Amino acid sequence: MNNGVAMDPLADLRTFLKVHGLSGFILPRENRFRSAHLSPWEERLAWLTGFTGSAGLAIVLADRAALFVDGRYTLAASRQIASTFEITEEKPEQWLARALPISTPASVGFDPWQFTPTRLKCFQRASPHLAFKQIAENPVDVLWCNRPVPESPAVFPIDLHCTGCSTQQKHRQILQHVQQLGAQALFLADPASVAWVLNVRTEAPYFPIPSAYALLQETELTVFSNITYWPDVPHCVHHPLSGMQKVLDTAVADTLLLDLDETSCAVYTFLRNAKKQLITAPNPCKALKAIKNVVELEGFRDCHQRDAVALIEFLAWLEQTGPCGTIDEHSAAERLLEERARDPSFRGPSFETISASGPNAAFVHYRVPSTGARFLQSGEGYLLDSGGHYENGTTDCTRTIGLGPVADTHFKRIYTAVLKGLIAATTTIFPRGTPGAAIDSIARQPLWQMGYDYDHGTGHGVGHYLSVHEDPPTLSKLSRTPLELGMVLSIEPGCYKPDVFGIRLENVVEVVPASENPGFLTFSPLTLVPFEPALIEQDCLTREEAKWLHWYHSNIWKTLYSRLSKKGQEWLNTRKTSCRF
Amino acid sequence: MNNGVAMDPLADLRTFLKVHGLSGFILPRENRFRSAHLSPWEERLAWLTGFTGSAGLAIVLADRAALFVDGRYTLAASRQIASTFEITEEKPEQWLARALPISTPASVGFDPWQFTPTRLKCFQRASPHLAFKQIAENPVDVLWCNRPVPESPAVFPIDLHCTGCSTQQKHRQILQHVQQLGAQALFLADPASVAWVLNVRTEAPYFPIPSAYALLQETELTVFSNITYWPDVPHCVHHPLSGMQKVLDTAVADTLLLDLDETSCAVYTFLRNAKKQLITAPNPCKALKAIKNVVELEGFRDCHQRDAVALIEFLAWLEQTGPCGTIDEHSAAERLLEERARDPSFRGPSFETISASGPNAAFVHYRVPSTGARFLQSGEGYLLDSGGHYENGTTDCTRTIGLGPVADTHFKRIYTAVLKGLIAATTTIFPRGTPGAAIDSIARQPLWQMGYDYDHGTGHGVGHYLSVHEDPPTLSKLSRTPLELGMVLSIEPGCYKPDVFGIRLENVVEVVPASENPGFLTFSPLTLVPFEPALIEQDCLTREEAKWLHWYHSNIWKTLYSRLSKKGQEWLNTRKTSCRF
Repeated sequence: MNNGVAMDPLADLRTFLKVHGLSGFILPRENRFRSAHLSPWEERLAWLTGFTGSAGLAIVLADRAALFVDGRYTLAASRQIASTFEITEEKPEQWLARALPISTPASVGFDPWQFTPTRLKCFQRASPHLAFKQIAENPVDVLWCNRPVPESPAVFPIDLHCTGCSTQQKHRQILQHVQQLGAQALFLADPASVAWVLNVRTEAPYFPIPSAYALLQETELTVFSNITYWPDVPHCVHHPLSGMQKVLDTAVADTLLLDLDETSCAVYTFLRNAKKQLITAPNPCKALKAIKNVVELEGFRDCHQRDAVALIEFLAWLEQTGPCGTIDEHSAAERLLEERARDPSFRGPSFETISASGPNAAFVHYRVPSTGARFLQSGEGYLLDSGGHYENGTTDCTRTIGLGPVADTHFKRIYTAVLKGLIAATTTIFPRGTPGAAIDSIARQPLWQMGYDYDHGTGHGVGHYLSVHEDPPTLSKLSRTPLELGMVLSIEPGCYKPDVFGIRLENVVEVVPASENPGFLTFSPLTLVPFEPALIEQDCLTREEAKWLHWYHSNIWKTLYSRLSKKGQEWLNTRKTSCRF
Repeated sequence: MNNGVAMDPLADLRTFLKVHGLSGFILPRENRFRSAHLSPWEERLAWLTGFTGSAGLAIVLADRAALFVDGRYTLAASRQIASTFEITEEKPEQWLARALPISTPASVGFDPWQFTPTRLKCFQRASPHLAFKQIAENPVDVLWCNRPVPESPAVFPIDLHCTGCSTQQKHRQILQHVQQLGAQALFLADPASVAWVLNVRTEAPYFPIPSAYALLQETELTVFSNITYWPDVPHCVHHPLSGMQKVLDTAVADTLLLDLDETSCAVYTFLRNAKKQLITAPNPCKALKAIKNVVELEGFRDCHQRDAVALIEFLAWLEQTGPCGTIDEHSAAERLLEERARDPSFRGPSFETISASGPNAAFVHYRVPSTGARFLQSGEGYLLDSGGHYENGTTDCTRTIGLGPVADTHFKRIYTAVLKGLIAATTTIFPRGTPGAAIDSIARQPLWQMGYDYDHGTGHGVGHYLSVHEDPPTLSKLSRTPLELGMVLSIEPGCYKPDVFGIRLENVVEVVPASENPGFLTFSPLTLVPFEPALIEQDCLTREEAKWLHWYHSNIWKTLYSRLSKKGQEWLNTRKTSCRF
């Protein structure tokens, strides 16, 4: 026990390496199920480095240590973690190859539950001279004192009137794809796909997805998890993880399909031990669940209306209270949660709310500190990126507002450029199957013309009461995802000036037919939250952009006015009148 | 001899397959050097199928045969070749996997000089049940009667005042890259890279590049080719292909770098036989020669001016003569060649001129038939896509004009949309390293908004008196090429209505800094040929577009007016005045 003694995780890990004859250890931010959201007891990377972002990887050597983060987190990481770690956007495998060059034969450890064979291969290719060793027990699990206790949130089924498609139907549909690829069964290592097939969710915050694997055979659907209570799902058998090897060994199917990009080395060993023929291909569930069915789309539309009511009530309250200097980022986020929680179909936030005032908004994925949050101040910007899970869908909305009058014309020019990018991407008409990269550059155009850019994607797919970040589709510089009718995704351009301000605007949209042009698609906004007329430089808008804004605000007014409180109605009225461009 | 007897290449090939116990043969349009332009004696695919496009592949089985072409050629192929071939845009490996399913174990032949290991792997992966057999002598070479005789065009060195960089400098620069990748030498299987390093060219039409391989070692540069006369290049030794194995076997270097995507299976066998350690990586010359040096850029600017003079003189002549009904597509192309040939630094056309009138312009890569070419008619459109090689650069320009007054407003609306796309792509400002796909979608926007698209890329890199199509960079829907300062490429949106018309506008541009925004880039047009004021729907242009057009035409006037004939000056004056938007 380390009670009362200063802890040094990095020193402890180095001692572990020395004792075990290892030159290094690679620790990605991953749990056994490759979930986007980790429980506190799974935050091994945060324990080691102090870094709490949602994506990262550390490499610890005897005399050097590095933390690898993407563009969203470089600023946050540099402020959050000790100088003992180099912070870099370099590829970890390239850094390692340089750090342990060819002259030093060495062993580098990793946890096979945290690595896919694909990722391991990247490291092996970059450093063929190194031996990469699977470590049976993750050293962090050995060293971490006062570790949080694992939770096991309850699993429950969701209704056909929300999902629109039964487990049996999905099972059949998936097996057709699997058989076309020459396999008899599918091993699902992706918990979101398992939750989607089985129409089950958990009460876990943000990521309402049970930690489970599944085996889909012609006659049977088997789930593997350590969750104590598993609800009845027709034709589905539940086994603890400890029983997985036996079930795989005795499975009827001879040929198994699996996706190597989402199967950990540990699970891959189970599958190889079972002596089946393994066919590797992308998990077919991902493409299937990306195209939302009519019931899911109807649910998305409905829950976005409910969510917009909560956001508008919050923004109306904030307009009066925010500039007074009595509200901090934390209490603002709490207030928003209260507004959302009034709706009986609300199931919880879809991710940790980014409630960032003034310069804090420049951190793309800012987290409100648990104590000492910044107070909102008049004359500053405030960025709010939040969303909710509802029984019939998921929302994700970002608005940047001015607290009281904002004098900074530069801020307004950037706000307007970000808005123009959002409008350009939303109103684009494009042929079916156009890759996401095409939309990405259209959203960036107005900022590029001013010499600005943002170091994150323009958008991501949104799961249906699953993960708020669902891939495919994506909208990014290199995205090849073909866009198809029925996809739901975010469009969220932004612009960040470190230490000064951050601006991001985000709508969730669905892919719909372009009414006049057969074979062409466009986007229809699901999000129904007004923009800030006071921050728009009207002279910078084209006639078409102004027309679209007017239509967008009128549509919000028509859809939501009668469902708002008096205060909300008054607030919306001011948006409607000042947006009559 | 088949004199006087009707020949049936397909039947002959099938007999060959039967005799040799093969179930099929795969014939890509490739020569031994993977050149873009083939000599008549290398046109094996045309001999077999009748298809004369610049990219394609045939698969012949006992009872089925298919020709695989891309979007540019589907229309042309369907008119050009017999119904004995299925014409499809499907991937050949997928078609083959379906055509010879798992129940029929079979051998399929290919010519190892026509296949890279990478391409072979695609077929093997799609059909693991098939045996792919290297056929030592290509069956077409055995069967083809009355085959054209191989040429051996002379090779000559080009001067430092055109290339800006000596062979020794390039050699040193390349070896640095090679050594960073852990190799001691580079095997170059790409003739364009060989020509670039050695600063040599040939008099071959269109593709002025000798058919040669090269080995670059620290102390020596060795070229392999069957070309009889090879000029003196300092530090460079020339060997016939028959001597290649011996040179490789006795090479000093132990570790060779090679690019598997451009090395044929036949050459790969040579390299493996040499028992060196092989490191595979992209050919470093491609990225190096994509960034043009200052001398090359100066040459590009100069030759585009010379080329524009020829094109303007031609267009002035055509404006008067074209609508009379006395000029056919062939004689128009001949006249253009005469105009270009007046310039002493002109070295020949950079590709076969596309001179397409009326509905013929709907064939994206139309070829004027050698006899019976269509006559140009008043009231119709005329598409001219042509270019020249000059001693200091290469041009590529497409203009679509109206012959006499064009009444069709739809034609004008599309012309205007294509022009808007060209302007949007050209004037875009983007961060360094932006992938080509970003520019592609910007060029397509105006057409997408009208429900149109084009089934070809938006642009390609242009070689410096090398291949007019040089990769990287590319501008296409899936292009990941990062755009960098000093690249030269085409921007060529288009729109095609089968049987009615085709419109394409193409400028060559260079990548330059965006003057006011550090770290950002934009394009500067090298092509100096006016657009058609009579075809522009002025109401559809934004103020910025009109301003750009005015600047573009004024710049042409300032640069070229004094170099034109009286007729050319008069023609340019009408463009200048009618483009004062």
